Amino acid sequence: MAARIVKDDALLKRLSASGAPNYSAISPGEYRYKVQRLLPYLSEEGFIWYKGMVETAVARAFAKRGIVPASAADEIAAAAAEITAQEVYAEDELVHHDIVALVNRIRSRISEGSRGAVHRAATSCDIIDTANALRFRDAFREVILPDCAEFIGVMIEIIRRERNTLQIGRSHLQHGEPITFGFSQAWFLDRFGGRVMRMREASEALVGKFSGAMGAYNAQSLFVKDPVVFEREVLGQVGALPAGISSQIVQPEFVGDLMHFCLGGFSVLANWADDMRNLMRPEIGEISLQRGRDVSTSSTMPHKQNPVGLENIKSLWKEAAGRITTRYMDMISENARDLTNSASQRFIPEVFDIFDYAVTRGTRIAKALKIDPQNMKKNFEISKDTIPSEPLQLLLSSVGWTDAHFDIGKLADRAAKEKRNVVEIAREDKELAKYIKRIKEEQLEMLSDPHRYTGEASAKAAEIADKWEAKLRGLNRSPG
Amino acid sequence: MAARIVKDDALLKRLSASGAPNYSAISPGEYRYKVQRLLPYLSEEGFIWYKGMVETAVARAFAKRGIVPASAADEIAAAAAEITAQEVYAEDELVHHDIVALVNRIRSRISEGSRGAVHRAATSCDIIDTANALRFRDAFREVILPDCAEFIGVMIEIIRRERNTLQIGRSHLQHGEPITFGFSQAWFLDRFGGRVMRMREASEALVGKFSGAMGAYNAQSLFVKDPVVFEREVLGQVGALPAGISSQIVQPEFVGDLMHFCLGGFSVLANWADDMRNLMRPEIGEISLQRGRDVSTSSTMPHKQNPVGLENIKSLWKEAAGRITTRYMDMISENARDLTNSASQRFIPEVFDIFDYAVTRGTRIAKALKIDPQNMKKNFEISKDTIPSEPLQLLLSSVGWTDAHFDIGKLADRAAKEKRNVVEIAREDKELAKYIKRIKEEQLEMLSDPHRYTGEASAKAAEIADKWEAKLRGLNRSPG
Amino acid sequence: MAARIVKDDALLKRLSASGAPNYSAISPGEYRYKVQRLLPYLSEEGFIWYKGMVETAVARAFAKRGIVPASAADEIAAAAAEITAQEVYAEDELVHHDIVALVNRIRSRISEGSRGAVHRAATSCDIIDTANALRFRDAFREVILPDCAEFIGVMIEIIRRERNTLQIGRSHLQHGEPITFGFSQAWFLDRFGGRVMRMREASEALVGKFSGAMGAYNAQSLFVKDPVVFEREVLGQVGALPAGISSQIVQPEFVGDLMHFCLGGFSVLANWADDMRNLMRPEIGEISLQRGRDVSTSSTMPHKQNPVGLENIKSLWKEAAGRITTRYMDMISENARDLTNSASQRFIPEVFDIFDYAVTRGTRIAKALKIDPQNMKKNFEISKDTIPSEPLQLLLSSVGWTDAHFDIGKLADRAAKEKRNVVEIAREDKELAKYIKRIKEEQLEMLSDPHRYTGEASAKAAEIADKWEAKLRGLNRSPG
Amino acid sequence: MAARIVKDDALLKRLSASGAPNYSAISPGEYRYKVQRLLPYLSEEGFIWYKGMVETAVARAFAKRGIVPASAADEIAAAAAEITAQEVYAEDELVHHDIVALVNRIRSRISEGSRGAVHRAATSCDIIDTANALRFRDAFREVILPDCAEFIGVMIEIIRRERNTLQIGRSHLQHGEPITFGFSQAWFLDRFGGRVMRMREASEALVGKFSGAMGAYNAQSLFVKDPVVFEREVLGQVGALPAGISSQIVQPEFVGDLMHFCLGGFSVLANWADDMRNLMRPEIGEISLQRGRDVSTSSTMPHKQNPVGLENIKSLWKEAAGRITTRYMDMISENARDLTNSASQRFIPEVFDIFDYAVTRGTRIAKALKIDPQNMKKNFEISKDTIPSEPLQLLLSSVGWTDAHFDIGKLADRAAKEKRNVVEIAREDKELAKYIKRIKEEQLEMLSDPHRYTGEASAKAAEIADKWEAKLRGLNRSPG
Repeated sequence: MAARIVKDDALLKRLSASGAPNYSAISPGEYRYKVQRLLPYLSEEGFIWYKGMVETAVARAFAKRGIVPASAADEIAAAAAEITAQEVYAEDELVHHDIVALVNRIRSRISEGSRGAVHRAATSCDIIDTANALRFRDAFREVILPDCAEFIGVMIEIIRRERNTLQIGRSHLQHGEPITFGFSQAWFLDRFGGRVMRMREASEALVGKFSGAMGAYNAQSLFVKDPVVFEREVLGQVGALPAGISSQIVQPEFVGDLMHFCLGGFSVLANWADDMRNLMRPEIGEISLQRGRDVSTSSTMPHKQNPVGLENIKSLWKEAAGRITTRYMDMISENARDLTNSASQRFIPEVFDIFDYAVTRGTRIAKALKIDPQNMKKNFEISKDTIPSEPLQLLLSSVGWTDAHFDIGKLADRAAKEKRNVVEIAREDKELAKYIKRIKEEQLEMLSDPHRYTGEASAKAAEIADKWEAKLRGLNRSPG
Repeated sequence: MAARIVKDDALLKRLSASGAPNYSAISPGEYRYKVQRLLPYLSEEGFIWYKGMVETAVARAFAKRGIVPASAADEIAAAAAEITAQEVYAEDELVHHDIVALVNRIRSRISEGSRGAVHRAATSCDIIDTANALRFRDAFREVILPDCAEFIGVMIEIIRRERNTLQIGRSHLQHGEPITFGFSQAWFLDRFGGRVMRMREASEALVGKFSGAMGAYNAQSLFVKDPVVFEREVLGQVGALPAGISSQIVQPEFVGDLMHFCLGGFSVLANWADDMRNLMRPEIGEISLQRGRDVSTSSTMPHKQNPVGLENIKSLWKEAAGRITTRYMDMISENARDLTNSASQRFIPEVFDIFDYAVTRGTRIAKALKIDPQNMKKNFEISKDTIPSEPLQLLLSSVGWTDAHFDIGKLADRAAKEKRNVVEIAREDKELAKYIKRIKEEQLEMLSDPHRYTGEASAKAAEIADKWEAKLRGLNRSPG
Repeated sequence: MAARIVKDDALLKRLSASGAPNYSAISPGEYRYKVQRLLPYLSEEGFIWYKGMVETAVARAFAKRGIVPASAADEIAAAAAEITAQEVYAEDELVHHDIVALVNRIRSRISEGSRGAVHRAATSCDIIDTANALRFRDAFREVILPDCAEFIGVMIEIIRRERNTLQIGRSHLQHGEPITFGFSQAWFLDRFGGRVMRMREASEALVGKFSGAMGAYNAQSLFVKDPVVFEREVLGQVGALPAGISSQIVQPEFVGDLMHFCLGGFSVLANWADDMRNLMRPEIGEISLQRGRDVSTSSTMPHKQNPVGLENIKSLWKEAAGRITTRYMDMISENARDLTNSASQRFIPEVFDIFDYAVTRGTRIAKALKIDPQNMKKNFEISKDTIPSEPLQLLLSSVGWTDAHFDIGKLADRAAKEKRNVVEIAREDKELAKYIKRIKEEQLEMLSDPHRYTGEASAKAAEIADKWEAKLRGLNRSPG
Repeated sequence: MAARIVKDDALLKRLSASGAPNYSAISPGEYRYKVQRLLPYLSEEGFIWYKGMVETAVARAFAKRGIVPASAADEIAAAAAEITAQEVYAEDELVHHDIVALVNRIRSRISEGSRGAVHRAATSCDIIDTANALRFRDAFREVILPDCAEFIGVMIEIIRRERNTLQIGRSHLQHGEPITFGFSQAWFLDRFGGRVMRMREASEALVGKFSGAMGAYNAQSLFVKDPVVFEREVLGQVGALPAGISSQIVQPEFVGDLMHFCLGGFSVLANWADDMRNLMRPEIGEISLQRGRDVSTSSTMPHKQNPVGLENIKSLWKEAAGRITTRYMDMISENARDLTNSASQRFIPEVFDIFDYAVTRGTRIAKALKIDPQNMKKNFEISKDTIPSEPLQLLLSSVGWTDAHFDIGKLADRAAKEKRNVVEIAREDKELAKYIKRIKEEQLEMLSDPHRYTGEASAKAAEIADKWEAKLRGLNRSPG
């Protein structure tokens, strides 16, 4: 039922009229980073639509039990679908209560005899918290997870295409051992994919409630003998489940988990963006992008190729990363509930919006990335003489040489200075030469050709690409 | 010049047309917590207006030096005032650069001969960072600080009115020693006022720049011999100053300071809100509020009097408090500047907006607060028998009794259990009675009447009220 | 194998000698909040012990393949168990590398022929990251989760004992509808328990690695044909698993998850502590605690009963809550790995330590809590006249009265003012009386006796207690 | 008086015995990042010493007024200086109160007649908060600020030495316009120095209190007629001042400011560290460091030169940056004070310690930095053909060419591709050539030699060095 929302004409019409960038806005989410497709779920208009849907679910569940007439539930459903945020806010001005305002607006649109069926036995948070669970779930199900899946798809392509493209591996920003570019991307894909799977679980696990003002089913027990069962019937109308127990509010940990996994995915994406823009440094030049939306010039330096898209991803992450703390603060709500979680949780959609914006941007950039194997090779050559010092040391050590570490270090420094291969220099050393002779021929080969010293880079890249192709099929399939 | 903005007709007209609550918004800052008076400064429309003002300042400074014609500067000024965010964004779609878009729009509106004077020698951040400094300064100068001053004014009134209203002082949520309600409010006033003074300093200290793409005045030095002096002339046009040195960007610490002091003020306000709503607990009842915008009923429990206004202040604080971390992250901008501070700093106005919203709401609530001296007295009486145990112990100790602490503790427990005054019980003890005789009469009086044991509470309350009345006069006077 | 650590005599002896509170320490974790039982896992001495265990695992796996002699592995195992942090640090002073220092110390203790088997094909992070995974897993498995289980056990007892103890439910710090004290505790138990289950999953899911300096098995592939399989053999020695792919480091998301769930549990505990100390306010007095370790007097006010233990839990939470941000920052490690995650992740154990300290303290307090049913009843009575306004409104609404909400609100206010039951007042109203007659007798009963209006509070409390008793059995059983 | 502490023999002896790295510690502050010189201020032993000093100040102030005998104050002073943390903690085990424990230990060491003078009229926080203000102030005055001054001194030297060393300026990690290396360092120096000056102000502005349990001077007014004046006398004994008003605690904003400025300085340092280690990339190589404490090799790749010292600075910053949030949380202390600021503020010294550790390490690294002008030149050459596009565009624009921006961009791209100077290519264009002729000769020179296009880089570098040399003299001079 919930998935139907993207096709709800009345809502989409309202949003299309007003969902344009709004330059009188203070929040950059409104005028700059707004994802139009998310508005049915994350906008205030959409939120009110979802609250109306929950009011409908309550009425329908009572109707199924024969406690309210089915016609009343039908009237409520019809009214809820039509109500606009504007009218609710106008009513709120009079009654100073957002849910009372919504309830009044529904009541005003239906026959008098049906009015008693509206909001029956419900407390505000039965409606609000359930609506939040549904809209966040749907935002992920319908937009964010598919957008993540698209990024995953592009990464799979890159990894497969570049699984054998030689690149110097780096750590500490220094040259390490050889890898392939595809392998380096597999590291990001597997981490990002892992977070996406957790986001999916967490968004589907969001809980609703229909347990009344204290969570103890006080009001519900006036009408049904089995309010715990009845809660499941109400939530079942919108495909949701309750937690083990609620107070006035649902357990805040569940939405905290979704935020955590989302910020984790955001962190991986930011890490990828950082790496990519570093590889675009003029001195490195291993990847490049055409000028356009994501690479801009400067207002004064026309020769610049600024990776603004990649920088933007990192910058949005900076804005989002600290916001988890608010979620922990919201886990403290005194005496069953104070309202200090109300305004703060209204900002949650902002984070989901900028995450989705960043993912989509990342996808566009990933598609456009140009790999420069020549520059990768050129950079690799800087270290080709010293790279064999790792395998040399390991092999010497395996044939009995014991103080390998520091001596090889000195040799490597000499190799770098003299621009000669470290193995060549090692062979000139009498003591070392003695041990080098003991090394097996096939192992020695690796020393003579550092380009081959890439271990399982290519195989692992392929494995990760295959793994996520399989999982991707699951991701794109709605669980509902 | 900057202060003139609130009277800029074109801008205000644009904002009034579009500044209404926008229910298709994702950010609650747009549909719920928007402070209309802040839009000239904090909205995107206002930001572009300010950027136009800085472009004008650049042209005027060059004109004063005779490097560009005065008429060109006039044309730029006229064009800048008219340009809308909408047209800049439309251009941005083509050129993928916000400042190039603005510059193009200005150029398109002026005579061909004047076009070369636009954005002369400037880099984007010369315009952006200076505009941010100006608009944040003006937002505080024109709206936020005056709003804070109003809260201070209301607190002064409360403190003076209630400086002698007896209240049991609390710590650890337990009863301590007697104070007055006015004194308890003075604690909040002095702290809040202190933060406001620092916000004022920090907002006036925000820095601009006109030092070019690297901060080294490369471009400026093509046109003037003394670019460091010339930077001051440009900034002087809009009443701003540069920092000691800039890179592509201004030193990010200054706006970080403003955020820090703002969050400090927010914290004090949240502390006050927490205290007030705790005093509204039915079991305490020392203050109350009428139902209305800030105290709402429940959608299901019509008897409730929920302090939603006070809870809202705390909740907005929760949202804001963690955001300072982003400011520290923005202090790290690699190699003179990466753009990773760009999107993140666009969210700064959101914090200023919700802070101002909370202050204004706090003012409205403070004005409406009803003090209940009867309930204060009733709560005080709970502890009246044990309160003298502090002065009793101190006085016994001062006349030679040495193991005062723990014995008096037991007496206090007995006093609580038997509901008799602790001094009365002490007099029955032979050893203690011996020491009690040594206490001076005037000191003993305090023991017999705990209501008088309020120390300097009243005097200190008055002192703090006077102090802030004097400072308030300064606060309301624009420093420009 | 890992679980054996708590019985490792050499390590425990080293720790018992030096694990005493250290007053020259700067960190309060050392002199004040140190959990002695955690030292084998979370201390630096313990960390080095675990690193030695991983070096042993590497050697044993190579020995199983016949690549190094079994005797070498035995020598390494014996040496690793004996090495002290002190000697490793002394060596580190010379070589400026913590893992090289450890390796040198192992080598110095074994026969020359076995030295080549030490650290074979390993990079530092193969050892460090795997050791962290193991020690964090074991710290949770052996200490933290059992401590959480004890808190859960005490909560189960309280809930069962107090499942029928009437308490006014609160929200917004105001009186809502009736619940039972046991029900209010079940809310905390279910949330806390939920977090504990996630901590368990996350701690068991921590990943190790044996994939070399770039994660591409470069070095490993010198010695084995199937390094991906071999990695599982190495990790299998210590009961761990790898992630899908690693770079120089393991995927940082896994330890981030553990931190997130831990902070969630901490938040629930802090929420509970806040509620308990509020119920200890003199004006509320629904629970109390004896003076002692967790309730102290004041240095000057001998009558005070300060709930310092409960305040301490909240305060430690405040210290911990913001630290998750560092975990997201650590998810960004440039170019396969920079070392900027090294110092920061060394602080992770501090959070686990203070969480465990807080849990243990919470358990002690929960055991000592005294419930005061008289005061609960007294507080309940404050609202007994207005409480029926919720069911009254709902029932009126269900029998056709449509504008129920606001009228009942006025009646409730009158009830509070006149100290008469709201239903009584309602019956006097002609129009309402008409509707009241339509309400079923059994529903009306609830109105006449608000004490019975507790819904499913008691039943739900029992259900939650049973649920966690069953899960507890699983929690105390080591999964290894 | 306070400055005397570093020479207090008894304290230093206690610390030297136990201040060694403690490997049974959980906190890395203890076993790895401990700054020995900070222990007199930041360790628990030092804290208790400072609390003793405040107790002494109280007694001396009373003695000066003739309220207690001078001999009692002398006895207290002598006792306070000798008391060890160990004995206070042993007593705390019995009385469950840290300040009562300290007071009891002082009393046990002095004559019976003097015991009544101990802790006269004081509440615990009078002692604790004042001691914190003093020890934090002294830690900055005696250790941290001088350490910062040393870093500043080294930076001044570098800037002067390298003020003319040509370097390509960068932004967005791309090449911008020419600067000098000295200029790039001046950007960090001025920002860091600015933060240091604010740390100095904030540390000297920390406030104490002697206003009793509620801040209302209840107890004090039993003994003196003018407790507000008397508070200044007490604090004057230790060179401190009170805030305008206190509650049970001092206003928490002051220590929050110190933390904020400290984290700002930390951020600048981390920014510098990031830049330096990026300049050490093998592909850039503009600076280098010898292997040693701050540049280590790898445990498996002997050729690596890992900038571990610079990475460590960034990593410690990551750990510290989020901790400011706890300070804002501590600004909320309910009802004059709850104790939820107690444990959390005990962690403040940890941040000061790791900041100082990072500064000292940064100084060592800055001293050892080797600049490579050849590589700077080599990297500069990459962009030498396109760099003149900025001045070319500006100059064309100034002589009437209006669509300068985009055309020059294309020329710059051609220049990069054809490896020819952009001005050369421009001259071939008929239309442009027409405008180029109008440019003044002296301006054209800049185009032909991009190496000269450094604006005020060198002069500004010198100015900043001079500015901080002058301020440095102030910084090293104790304000006491």
